[in-house]
Amino acid sequence: MAAPDQVTDPVGSRLLRRLRDSGPLSRAELASGLEVPRARLLSELDSLLAAGLVQEAGPAESRGGRRSTLVELNRDLRFAAVDLGARSIDVEITDGRLEPIAVHSEPADIRSGPKVILHRVSEILAKFKVDGAYDRLQAIGIGIPGPVSFRDGVPVSPPIMPGWDRFPVREVLGREHGCPVVVDNDVNIMAIGERYGGVARMTDNLLFVKIGTGIGCGIYVGGQVYRGTDGCAGDIGHIQVEDDGPVCSCGNIGCLEAYFGGGALGRDALAAARSGQSPALAERLSNSGALTAADVAAGAAEGDATCVQLIRDGGRRVGTVLAGLVSFINPSMIVIGGGLAGLGHLLLAEIRSVVYRRSLPLATGNLPIVMSELGARAGVVGAAVLASDLAYGQPS
Amino acid sequence: MAAPDQVTDPVGSRLLRRLRDSGPLSRAELASGLEVPRARLLSELDSLLAAGLVQEAGPAESRGGRRSTLVELNRDLRFAAVDLGARSIDVEITDGRLEPIAVHSEPADIRSGPKVILHRVSEILAKFKVDGAYDRLQAIGIGIPGPVSFRDGVPVSPPIMPGWDRFPVREVLGREHGCPVVVDNDVNIMAIGERYGGVARMTDNLLFVKIGTGIGCGIYVGGQVYRGTDGCAGDIGHIQVEDDGPVCSCGNIGCLEAYFGGGALGRDALAAARSGQSPALAERLSNSGALTAADVAAGAAEGDATCVQLIRDGGRRVGTVLAGLVSFINPSMIVIGGGLAGLGHLLLAEIRSVVYRRSLPLATGNLPIVMSELGARAGVVGAAVLASDLAYGQPS
Repeated sequence: MAAPDQVTDPVGSRLLRRLRDSGPLSRAELASGLEVPRARLLSELDSLLAAGLVQEAGPAESRGGRRSTLVELNRDLRFAAVDLGARSIDVEITDGRLEPIAVHSEPADIRSGPKVILHRVSEILAKFKVDGAYDRLQAIGIGIPGPVSFRDGVPVSPPIMPGWDRFPVREVLGREHGCPVVVDNDVNIMAIGERYGGVARMTDNLLFVKIGTGIGCGIYVGGQVYRGTDGCAGDIGHIQVEDDGPVCSCGNIGCLEAYFGGGALGRDALAAARSGQSPALAERLSNSGALTAADVAAGAAEGDATCVQLIRDGGRRVGTVLAGLVSFINPSMIVIGGGLAGLGHLLLAEIRSVVYRRSLPLATGNLPIVMSELGARAGVVGAAVLASDLAYGQPS
Repeated sequence: MAAPDQVTDPVGSRLLRRLRDSGPLSRAELASGLEVPRARLLSELDSLLAAGLVQEAGPAESRGGRRSTLVELNRDLRFAAVDLGARSIDVEITDGRLEPIAVHSEPADIRSGPKVILHRVSEILAKFKVDGAYDRLQAIGIGIPGPVSFRDGVPVSPPIMPGWDRFPVREVLGREHGCPVVVDNDVNIMAIGERYGGVARMTDNLLFVKIGTGIGCGIYVGGQVYRGTDGCAGDIGHIQVEDDGPVCSCGNIGCLEAYFGGGALGRDALAAARSGQSPALAERLSNSGALTAADVAAGAAEGDATCVQLIRDGGRRVGTVLAGLVSFINPSMIVIGGGLAGLGHLLLAEIRSVVYRRSLPLATGNLPIVMSELGARAGVVGAAVLASDLAYGQPS
């Protein structure tokens, strides 16, 4: 197969992405809507066939007359999608249409540093290869939990990733695996995944709000991912929601993240359990020795008043920040994802209530605020989209 | 001259905009950097000459060898730029390079409704024509103080403009003056003006913050004006800054605009004058019978503590909102404009202080926060840019 970074022809790039998104097509179907002269299209298709990126896929279903032949992406194309979290590594190997071939998840501490973590990523990929999941990768997409210089493929001053600042992630993985690599922020890859294969398909102006250990936002404007001047757009966890209040990990006070998100919720749940304020949390703490957002969700489902209030308070503060952002950016959709999306309808209802009450009516008249469809898979799906865009010649 | 909406060729459009931005050029200078085959360029230039949009401008300065001939925009090209404020009409007639030929400003109440206001605009334009400022307009650009459907050329639910909702501004002015018209929000045209001819030249990701009677924000992302899904992006005056506080004109409480902006500042200045808290304001009130932001600025310059505090409080609240937006959108520059920019360095210093302290360090490391260079002219300059983009074939 050709090295995927050789696909620089815009027609070839569009053909590959069309086959990725639609599956096997006849030449006539492939041509429709592309507005490219048929001879040009057929010649480009021949190049892709010769390069081994595309293959014949047998005859189309007969509609009378001569049967046409379908073409499809070479079934041996493979991408690697990696989602590094603060405490996890998720990896998928996908085919050229981004369908998963092999999946692996394991706990890991991002603070172990880039050498340890990327070495482990490479071990996981090598194991997949030995097991036959791939022969050769076309490209790797990887998301990391901090700001990224998308152009340079390096983390930039990531607050929770000691040792990673400007570490050459793209270069190291590319050299190790002999293929192009694309590096992005973990929230951006979730937004990209959700817009490609989830609830936000074709949405032009999207806010994807990740509520996990921390809180961040992926942004689409005009159908394009927006990463900001320094690659740190969407850092909404440190927007101030109260003039005073708990000190945040960033050193400021009153940040959204100091009130809500996995870290803050765990802290508040522990306090409510220990003070006896929440019988449900106290029982769970004595059973398991620790408390997470899932315990708060379970407590709320059982009707524990403190758990319900913790979720409502968090939703109200997220809603207050989002209400301001809706007035500012006038999006067409907001998607809530990340680990704490598991808090469910109670969280969503509170967020909606504040945004719909506080933002300009014109901006909320047709504004859906919905839960992520892809859930925990959003990140790897987005990483695979980025990898395939790179290989198929479409800058993301 | 050809109807300007006939310029649909992308090469012709680029030639016209280059001549607008650079002035007279030789054919060689015009060709450089355009990456268009020379024959194609010359043929397109001939079309523009034949259509009367471009003219010969005499010989270039000799550099030895054969003298080349300069071309320039036809000196008779004219645009009308209109900036409607809540209480004012500003109009400029410009030449093809957007240099002002004639200027007019007058007070007007936008609440008089579209028929009265647009009739007055037409009268002003007609007077210019009689006076010889133009023979024929190529296009009109107009900004209005409310949300606009840029595609439809109509205001959409503008809160301070009774009677204007979906009034066909573009159609009415176009029919009256026989030329294409482009309608945009007043803050957007200021941002466009400042980026074209002011302090924000070539800035990719820009926030232009207008602090006038109300407060709004023009947004550039990736070098393009961003207007939002419903045309109401940038409505930051109604972002909540306090949980309680004065009731805003929008019906919510604690909005930025309920605390600061010309309306709120006038209210607070009057209270400080009447209560005797501010001797400087009391004296000005007894002299003139009314108080505006200019009185507060003058009082602050004289060292009146209340005036200084009013400006500081306002700057702090604007800064708090901007700090959140900087974390969210990671802009490359913030420009402060509008009537209250006259409050000067005291306002700017307070805004800077809060933003630099409250936003992510990565986002503020290279972030200039500066005053508008164009001042009161920003709006008409932007309206002229929009009109010329329309006539020269570049969608804005």
